[in-house]
Amino acid sequence: MTPTTSPVRVRATDATGQPERTPQLEALYRGFEQQLLVPLWTAIGELMPAHPVSQARPHRWRWKDLLPMAEQAGQLVPVGRGGERRAIALANPGLGGQPFATPTLWAAIQYLNPQEYAPIHRHTQNAFRFVVEGEGVWTVVNGDPVAMRRGDFLPQAGWHWHGHHNRSDRAMAWIDGLDIPFQHYTDATFFEFGADEVDTREAPQRSRSERLWAHPGLRPLTHLQPTPATPLLAYRWEHTDRALAEQLALEAEGYSATVEPGHAAVRYTNPTTGADILPTLRTEFHRLAPDTATAARSEVGSSVFQVFDGTGEVTVGDSRWSVERGDLFVVPSWQPLAFATEHGLDLFRFTDAPIFERLHLHRSHQSPQERAEA
Amino acid sequence: MTPTTSPVRVRATDATGQPERTPQLEALYRGFEQQLLVPLWTAIGELMPAHPVSQARPHRWRWKDLLPMAEQAGQLVPVGRGGERRAIALANPGLGGQPFATPTLWAAIQYLNPQEYAPIHRHTQNAFRFVVEGEGVWTVVNGDPVAMRRGDFLPQAGWHWHGHHNRSDRAMAWIDGLDIPFQHYTDATFFEFGADEVDTREAPQRSRSERLWAHPGLRPLTHLQPTPATPLLAYRWEHTDRALAEQLALEAEGYSATVEPGHAAVRYTNPTTGADILPTLRTEFHRLAPDTATAARSEVGSSVFQVFDGTGEVTVGDSRWSVERGDLFVVPSWQPLAFATEHGLDLFRFTDAPIFERLHLHRSHQSPQERAEA
Amino acid sequence: MTPTTSPVRVRATDATGQPERTPQLEALYRGFEQQLLVPLWTAIGELMPAHPVSQARPHRWRWKDLLPMAEQAGQLVPVGRGGERRAIALANPGLGGQPFATPTLWAAIQYLNPQEYAPIHRHTQNAFRFVVEGEGVWTVVNGDPVAMRRGDFLPQAGWHWHGHHNRSDRAMAWIDGLDIPFQHYTDATFFEFGADEVDTREAPQRSRSERLWAHPGLRPLTHLQPTPATPLLAYRWEHTDRALAEQLALEAEGYSATVEPGHAAVRYTNPTTGADILPTLRTEFHRLAPDTATAARSEVGSSVFQVFDGTGEVTVGDSRWSVERGDLFVVPSWQPLAFATEHGLDLFRFTDAPIFERLHLHRSHQSPQERAEA
Amino acid sequence: MTPTTSPVRVRATDATGQPERTPQLEALYRGFEQQLLVPLWTAIGELMPAHPVSQARPHRWRWKDLLPMAEQAGQLVPVGRGGERRAIALANPGLGGQPFATPTLWAAIQYLNPQEYAPIHRHTQNAFRFVVEGEGVWTVVNGDPVAMRRGDFLPQAGWHWHGHHNRSDRAMAWIDGLDIPFQHYTDATFFEFGADEVDTREAPQRSRSERLWAHPGLRPLTHLQPTPATPLLAYRWEHTDRALAEQLALEAEGYSATVEPGHAAVRYTNPTTGADILPTLRTEFHRLAPDTATAARSEVGSSVFQVFDGTGEVTVGDSRWSVERGDLFVVPSWQPLAFATEHGLDLFRFTDAPIFERLHLHRSHQSPQERAEA
Repeated sequence: MTPTTSPVRVRATDATGQPERTPQLEALYRGFEQQLLVPLWTAIGELMPAHPVSQARPHRWRWKDLLPMAEQAGQLVPVGRGGERRAIALANPGLGGQPFATPTLWAAIQYLNPQEYAPIHRHTQNAFRFVVEGEGVWTVVNGDPVAMRRGDFLPQAGWHWHGHHNRSDRAMAWIDGLDIPFQHYTDATFFEFGADEVDTREAPQRSRSERLWAHPGLRPLTHLQPTPATPLLAYRWEHTDRALAEQLALEAEGYSATVEPGHAAVRYTNPTTGADILPTLRTEFHRLAPDTATAARSEVGSSVFQVFDGTGEVTVGDSRWSVERGDLFVVPSWQPLAFATEHGLDLFRFTDAPIFERLHLHRSHQSPQERAEA
Repeated sequence: MTPTTSPVRVRATDATGQPERTPQLEALYRGFEQQLLVPLWTAIGELMPAHPVSQARPHRWRWKDLLPMAEQAGQLVPVGRGGERRAIALANPGLGGQPFATPTLWAAIQYLNPQEYAPIHRHTQNAFRFVVEGEGVWTVVNGDPVAMRRGDFLPQAGWHWHGHHNRSDRAMAWIDGLDIPFQHYTDATFFEFGADEVDTREAPQRSRSERLWAHPGLRPLTHLQPTPATPLLAYRWEHTDRALAEQLALEAEGYSATVEPGHAAVRYTNPTTGADILPTLRTEFHRLAPDTATAARSEVGSSVFQVFDGTGEVTVGDSRWSVERGDLFVVPSWQPLAFATEHGLDLFRFTDAPIFERLHLHRSHQSPQERAEA
Repeated sequence: MTPTTSPVRVRATDATGQPERTPQLEALYRGFEQQLLVPLWTAIGELMPAHPVSQARPHRWRWKDLLPMAEQAGQLVPVGRGGERRAIALANPGLGGQPFATPTLWAAIQYLNPQEYAPIHRHTQNAFRFVVEGEGVWTVVNGDPVAMRRGDFLPQAGWHWHGHHNRSDRAMAWIDGLDIPFQHYTDATFFEFGADEVDTREAPQRSRSERLWAHPGLRPLTHLQPTPATPLLAYRWEHTDRALAEQLALEAEGYSATVEPGHAAVRYTNPTTGADILPTLRTEFHRLAPDTATAARSEVGSSVFQVFDGTGEVTVGDSRWSVERGDLFVVPSWQPLAFATEHGLDLFRFTDAPIFERLHLHRSHQSPQERAEA
Repeated sequence: MTPTTSPVRVRATDATGQPERTPQLEALYRGFEQQLLVPLWTAIGELMPAHPVSQARPHRWRWKDLLPMAEQAGQLVPVGRGGERRAIALANPGLGGQPFATPTLWAAIQYLNPQEYAPIHRHTQNAFRFVVEGEGVWTVVNGDPVAMRRGDFLPQAGWHWHGHHNRSDRAMAWIDGLDIPFQHYTDATFFEFGADEVDTREAPQRSRSERLWAHPGLRPLTHLQPTPATPLLAYRWEHTDRALAEQLALEAEGYSATVEPGHAAVRYTNPTTGADILPTLRTEFHRLAPDTATAARSEVGSSVFQVFDGTGEVTVGDSRWSVERGDLFVVPSWQPLAFATEHGLDLFRFTDAPIFERLHLHRSHQSPQERAEA
């Protein structure tokens, strides 16, 4: 590389671009350590690979394993100030035992006994709940009690006060999704305690946020500014189910309405902007009709899926699992993902895609060949 | 917390909200581990603190220590394909020896011998160079050779081809700033090799990008769309210096033009949008007039500073250093930062602030009391 | 004004700033005319008033006058290529007989006999239909048949192909709103003929656009980009009615949900952006509870209202009318507007407000005193 | 059109889609007039043409005719409160004698005698000044005195206080551009009187706005929010001239930098957004090298040009003129425009394009065939 006219003689590099380890070089490297320095040329391979190579690994958690542990925790672990929530997080096997589903995403099963409260707090972390089964809990967001029922998606913007209250005689479990790992890594997190009990015992079928906002294409004249997070606190299953059914019906009638044949999908959006429901989190619901197989697709950023209904086969990179109701699995960045189902499959998904889109780092790639190459 | 009407009896918690460690609980915790699960209630204190508590530590590197090591590397380490660059990165003492100045930012000193080339590559990482002393290198960005001279700021958007070429008979050192740690952690990085040598030997005083773009308030009719990164590849010292001098002169004439008394500052911006020069990086230049002391200020996100000229005292949280030309120091998230100078101080700064602003996670706080509280 | 040191002697002005009409001045003014010039100083009073003084006048059209004329036109005037539509436009009495409700807005009653077609065309004018009574017509937009029924709002973006078809055995009338005057004045209009008959005889209860888009907060994954106009082609009365009823119910329960006491209101929005349904037109629905009086409010830009139900008193500037179902009235720019109703009043409104908001020219003023001052 | 199954018999239409004029139809038309109604089918041809057909006409005003009239006005007409400005506006021959260069744009020559003042006022109209010759006047904007010299472009956002002061011993003329006709037609205009004399006698070479903002790519940290109008009050000729010269030089060196061969052009932009300098007005400078002919180009919206230097031939629709320094000409919407020059031509241009772009009504078409078709 160095032209012959150079006044400096430098050693040749080996095949990976590394200089020969001479005593002088070893001394220099020791000097780097003492001065808290690291050379790029020894680190570049790991730091700047040709494409994302996540430490996170594809992994599946079975609902039939998770739920019993949550029930046991319901017997042994109280919910109260300090611990705050009876939530049990997925710890990706590639991430050193931390409670991180992926480098950016937190996913947990939360469990509340009959009549139990979870105390009020707020935090900058963006959050949501998704209910795969059961009902009876109201999450109270800034004083607005929001019923939680199977199929409902309940976003929860950063810095909103919230607590939960099980108003029924049966325990209830659901999943929480948050951007805890992202905010933890980037040092952006604030947290504040609120009241020890939720501030209302009301348990309406529809929250006030829905009464103001869940009318398609209509916004109240009292709220005309765009907000970074959705003001709609519940996206009910009946709407999601209907939207997906319509897409498949339109496809059957010969119109373009699905992502690919047999694959209906909706994104949950903020009605004040049409964009994602939360600044850092994207949530979607996917429905695969019976006998559908999807193309393999890679995307920058990571995802967590929960099976809402049906059964199928999931392929993520080199991993392949059969999945059924309640099962959760993670898709690390750039790992190709494909589905196949014989009897139909309903999937809830959340990702960190808004982070990459807003920072102009998003990419995706779809190809049948992708899987073989990766 | 659980009301007396609850059908479930749960154990009391201790002062930190932790349940009593019974044998059953120990068994449950072992089950969690086997199932790759972690409870929130044991992790929440570290994961969700009241305010950001970074693992990164305030630290200063002295230029007079760095430069000799770079010179030694110039003798011992070649620049070529594989190693790519003779760049030596700051490794924050709180970040486990990784070459990360902060959790999101990379800062390195790069060194090129007379007539030496650094080969062409491109990567999704956003980058820039800043020159504290010397000249003679041209960085070639997508074929456009850009001269590098003391005081110049040279942004380098992700995925642009680039290499460097020292056209002079003297070695040259400068600093590189990138978002490598952020893209590494979030698994967003792509990298591609280009030609082994830079593709032009031209060494003009002004790059083509400057000839098209460095006219205040004017844009060429051939480029009317906003671009995520700045198309202007060099921000010359003469402009920065003049802008800062004008702010202080206006202040002296009685007009509001400075951030605070004696404190002039400019932000480098993308002329197609008025926003930051790169999607993930913010860069600024600050000038403190003689006998100036600034208020302590905390901000979400981390910064790296390099002293361009002058001398002064820097306080970051509990750390306090004297600094002089070339010294680099890091400010972790939410650590209060203040300056004092007797003879005047010129500072180049870069931060990850666009990440937080675009994700609605940015906060700042300015107060003399802040330091005591933090 | 001219200081005594001036080398030029100029004549004094009169109280309105006009120079004395000397023979020389008359000659100059004739010269101006010959050269196609007009001096500002003679025109400024009319051109640049202290606040908007519209040539448009407040006016009300009674539905019981309009509908019979439309029925007569149904007997005498065919619908076909060339005339295109049996639409009869409101001509503001201040605008010289042009078919302009206001300087920017077109409002017309359109009428279609049983089984009649209106031919397909497209134009850059943004349009919508609103149905105060009747049903049986399908408007076909880019091939998608959209049923029209009482209370429905049906937007129609510029440059979309569209025709209408009465599928019933009864004639039907509705109102059309467009930005024809604005695009005519600013010379922005394009027009193209399509097929002479609508291209489908389907008459579904729900259009395909509703099946894709009318799910609150959900968007199809096939359509993720923001569009300047709404993709939702029908906003059904059941949703509008429910949203308004909920606002008044929330108010009764003690929550802030109405614009002012007894005054519920929604804005129709584009679900891909949360903004107005069309780039130049804003549409809203207002419901006044019985025994409600609103504060007088002035706004830059003009409005057309149609009474959907109920009765009330409307005050616009110095005009005051009793209104009932179907009545239309116009509010010129900056004229204060107030309502009072004893038995309740439902109002559909459209305005040119997006023009002013996007150009940073919007202003509004609300005050009980406003009316007296204006 | 009406199918045979229709229960209604309607008359046939003629070739233009008009129904036969029977006595009943005449009676109906009289009824329309009484009720302030106009049918679409008689108006559509004029209202909704296939493409824009402006009432404005292409026209050229010669500087050698304009300037003497301004000088005469300088002798006969004082400048003071009420008349406000000695400005003489171009009145397009197609627009009925109104002082409108086009339906949206005002263009005037303004003239100030030695040592004369124009009083302070503010208005919502957006404005700018452009100087084709002379110097000596300072325009004072919100208290900031801004020197005006040949080649300078001086924007003046709506609702900023401003007055002018000729500090020299020679009279000075320049052109004003505003959106008066647009704001007048749409009833958006507010106006307020300020002090009778400008509030400062300072006459600096550089305004404070330039000292803060005229540094390429740098913005003061005191002003970080985007503003609808540019904060930079003077765009100096030296920068414009240099930017244009660089484009032609780059073209000569083989790089893509010009709009078309021999045609350099810059747009004046707001440094806080990169967008147009004012919400309703676009301004550009075009330089044609000697022996350049441009392609004919049509655009929605209208333009006013002033020749800054050189000579050439201008073709606008069916009009063709020779032009020289100071000449002004207007290009109505959608009229194809082309230039040819033997010795080179420098042109200042302003248009209403931001109105159409922000409302999604903008279109353009470039083709040698365009002229023949139009």
